[in-house]
Amino acid sequence: MNEKVSIVLVRTTHPGNIGAVARAMRVMGLHRLVLVDPRCRVGSVARARASGAVDVLDHARVVESIDEAIAEAGFVVGTSARKRSLGPQVCALRSGMAECMREQERGEVAILFGPERNGLDNAALERCNRLWYIPTAQDYASLNLSAAVQVVASELFAAGADAPPGDKPPAVASAGEVAGLITHFEEVARAVNFVDADAPRQAFHRVERLFHRARLEPAEVKLLRGFLTAVERRKRQSNER
Amino acid sequence: MNEKVSIVLVRTTHPGNIGAVARAMRVMGLHRLVLVDPRCRVGSVARARASGAVDVLDHARVVESIDEAIAEAGFVVGTSARKRSLGPQVCALRSGMAECMREQERGEVAILFGPERNGLDNAALERCNRLWYIPTAQDYASLNLSAAVQVVASELFAAGADAPPGDKPPAVASAGEVAGLITHFEEVARAVNFVDADAPRQAFHRVERLFHRARLEPAEVKLLRGFLTAVERRKRQSNER
Repeated sequence: MNEKVSIVLVRTTHPGNIGAVARAMRVMGLHRLVLVDPRCRVGSVARARASGAVDVLDHARVVESIDEAIAEAGFVVGTSARKRSLGPQVCALRSGMAECMREQERGEVAILFGPERNGLDNAALERCNRLWYIPTAQDYASLNLSAAVQVVASELFAAGADAPPGDKPPAVASAGEVAGLITHFEEVARAVNFVDADAPRQAFHRVERLFHRARLEPAEVKLLRGFLTAVERRKRQSNER
Repeated sequence: MNEKVSIVLVRTTHPGNIGAVARAMRVMGLHRLVLVDPRCRVGSVARARASGAVDVLDHARVVESIDEAIAEAGFVVGTSARKRSLGPQVCALRSGMAECMREQERGEVAILFGPERNGLDNAALERCNRLWYIPTAQDYASLNLSAAVQVVASELFAAGADAPPGDKPPAVASAGEVAGLITHFEEVARAVNFVDADAPRQAFHRVERLFHRARLEPAEVKLLRGFLTAVERRKRQSNER
């Protein structure tokens, strides 16, 4: 049983898909399902499709935002049937497995799947450390949601079975800790007029991407926040003068 | 687009699964679907689940028996979520890919999926050259039919993308040619009183397994049938004397 990986479904619209995802997970040893703002009721339709995996449905965590869903995760992965040029660094599903196994040693891993119609939007992708695309036929790439979860879950299962035991890599900060750092940075940056008040978003996005890519350790987050706090204190003192 | 591999669904009971299988195939470049004695109507439910892959449904071949479905295939694979001790030689899905790529060079490949409830029965497994099991969690191995097809299809797709071009291996006899040989052998064996009339099945099963395992070339089938015909001719002549 894999306790490190969560499957996060974002704004899913079909209850049958949620049930089928539960079954797809359970059969590959995954148990942790998170539903972000589901657009349907998880009732009898979902339970029928879940078959022997209703326990996964019953223990699913329902949250309002992606940030809430990934707060504890040290490694956040987006999924797509397309190679996208924007957003986090992209790799083909299978070639991402070695990294994912290492990350599972360091902390929790959240894997995001977007709504049936459009997949993950840019706001969601910005929160990801990595994007996996699932290779498909060029003329028809429309994987069903539960089919996509099945492919990812069976790759994870196969990778886990093959993985040699390695040295334990250093711990990594959770997405919640990194989000706290980013918010803190934005506050301080505004306070010291670091960013142009007319177009602050673009600069912040860059910083956000950087912090996500860097895979910060908890001690590093603490260090950076200590620095930001020091800047704030200094500013307050100079204002008081 | 892969023109060599057929997905063969045996006595499927849920039309939604047939539709979902069509989509699972299409997204991984597979087009050839064969339905053996389907136990449901392939109508609006199947079409809805097929989504953009209705062309696969529309071109599906519907046949009455497995023998009919695999007649043209040179390599017949059964699938299972369990490792079985009886029947054809077993390997884990991924470790079967190299062989399957070679077989696609030689001729057509048929991959069989059994009914939802019980999977392939022994009669079906006897017709297979190989059995692939899909590794799953030990405490819950109940893969949905379309999910199983999705996992197999994406492994095939990944293997095809990775496969280096190799030397063309010798052609292999089709399942229909091998079945003709086996029937011929049985007729001759009975005619010459080779087998015990009280328990002929067991001996025939052994011979059947042997011929399936041997991966006969077309010329070898022709040779063996020539031999059987010679035996028949000799017997007729001695009867006439």
